[in-house]
Amino acid sequence: MPFIRRLVIIGVGLIGASFGLALRRAGAAERIIGLGRTRANLETARRSGAIDEIQEDLAAAVRGAELVMLAAPVGQTPRILAQLEPVLERGTVVTDAGSTKQSVIAAARTFFGRHLPSFVPGHPVAGAESSGAAGASGDLYEGRNVILTSLPETDAAAVGLVTAAWEACGARVYRMDAAEHDHVLGMVSHLPHALGFAFMDLVTRDPSRERLLELAGTGFRDFTRIAGSSPEMWRDICLANRDSLLAGLDGFADCVDVLRTALEAQDGSTLSQLFERASAARRQWGERSGEAPHGSGQ
Amino acid sequence: MPFIRRLVIIGVGLIGASFGLALRRAGAAERIIGLGRTRANLETARRSGAIDEIQEDLAAAVRGAELVMLAAPVGQTPRILAQLEPVLERGTVVTDAGSTKQSVIAAARTFFGRHLPSFVPGHPVAGAESSGAAGASGDLYEGRNVILTSLPETDAAAVGLVTAAWEACGARVYRMDAAEHDHVLGMVSHLPHALGFAFMDLVTRDPSRERLLELAGTGFRDFTRIAGSSPEMWRDICLANRDSLLAGLDGFADCVDVLRTALEAQDGSTLSQLFERASAARRQWGERSGEAPHGSGQ
Repeated sequence: MPFIRRLVIIGVGLIGASFGLALRRAGAAERIIGLGRTRANLETARRSGAIDEIQEDLAAAVRGAELVMLAAPVGQTPRILAQLEPVLERGTVVTDAGSTKQSVIAAARTFFGRHLPSFVPGHPVAGAESSGAAGASGDLYEGRNVILTSLPETDAAAVGLVTAAWEACGARVYRMDAAEHDHVLGMVSHLPHALGFAFMDLVTRDPSRERLLELAGTGFRDFTRIAGSSPEMWRDICLANRDSLLAGLDGFADCVDVLRTALEAQDGSTLSQLFERASAARRQWGERSGEAPHGSGQ
Repeated sequence: MPFIRRLVIIGVGLIGASFGLALRRAGAAERIIGLGRTRANLETARRSGAIDEIQEDLAAAVRGAELVMLAAPVGQTPRILAQLEPVLERGTVVTDAGSTKQSVIAAARTFFGRHLPSFVPGHPVAGAESSGAAGASGDLYEGRNVILTSLPETDAAAVGLVTAAWEACGARVYRMDAAEHDHVLGMVSHLPHALGFAFMDLVTRDPSRERLLELAGTGFRDFTRIAGSSPEMWRDICLANRDSLLAGLDGFADCVDVLRTALEAQDGSTLSQLFERASAARRQWGERSGEAPHGSGQ
């Protein structure tokens, strides 16, 4: 039995379209309405079955809906919430998929105050908004983590509906405070992206740039993979989670200073300690997450 | 026809044993003698066919050899060169597989001066020394890059023999100056490893450490993979290539400063420019090196 008769997805990219496909596959959503900026992408989503219907009128789209998912890039959330505010009916639950949560909540407090009880801020830790409906998949969320950061005002029933929807997609749902979310994601996702971009930028400025790129191996490949991500999306995320990211950059600079001081003093024992702590933690994480064992690639 | 009748491999780990297997498979080496610290590992190498014979006596091992490969960890190179110096015959070529080259050359000038014409410093940019003979493979060097950093004193014939050996292993041989090698490898390998260790160290010190590791995704996985590498090996490499690494850390700090300043000023356009430059360079590198296209994973 579908527990969502009418689902609206605003922003039918990889994240939004995969949500539609997964809920349909689970038999959890009956009718799915899609809104978005790019007609061709919406058509792709309709052909794939991620949505049933394309709507241009926001008020018509959300009328009678149980759930609205905001899956547009996080920079557009304030504008969408402001447009949604006057047309949303009581009883329609709204959630989002933005990668940062304090900024979304601040926007909701400003533009969506009347509907705070039915707003459930969320973040599926998977994939990316930038790749479009063509890359969407009904099993994108299988085994992935979704973090909900409810407000004190949020209705328990609204959280329950959003939790049920994500669980129907095969995801594990965590609940935490928005500040903790932003710290955690800042550390494990936003900071490495920022560092990866900065490292790749350094390489492109090197006078021996061609030689570097010619001789770069598998260690370089893995370390820099995230630096190939969407510049627009990551600019928005970094700006939206600025405070956590700045704190992360400070902490990282301190760790690099320890390393640098040890290197200058040829202090092999401090280097060993730091590398051993890091290596043990990384290997343990790899085992826990079922990663294949790896060598010490160059 | 084997062009090496007697090959000696000192240090039969992943690198040394794979060299033996590859040369045997190519029919380039007739008899392969192995020396090392760990009996069990040497036995593994013999069983796999990487070596024919285990020797404990260095003088007996190298007598009549065309080629000696030093494939022990780079920190042991000075000691091995010093032991080799009095027993090596004229006409035996010596090469090494150390990840840093200026430090190896400095050791050779100190301990191996009489034999400089037959010493060909080298570095196969592949795999790692730390994983032992059990992980060795005859195709480890297939399509990989090997860098030779000859001295002004090195005989052309010695370089020719080492080049032929690596080409028989399927590798592409580059020649460059040791300082350029150390800069290039410092940038594309040693610096990312140092940064990867520092980042992983930061994560392990975080009060929310458990939460971080629980919610870390594929971006984190790739970015930190090199932080699982051997601490001892990387301590030695970092110390041996200290000057290049310190210069790389300075350059990186400058790039991070640009990012940090833009972030503080909420200067999205500078962030965009930096991210776009980095992302374009990384995508181009990925295409050139035949990597599968990727999304913007979290």
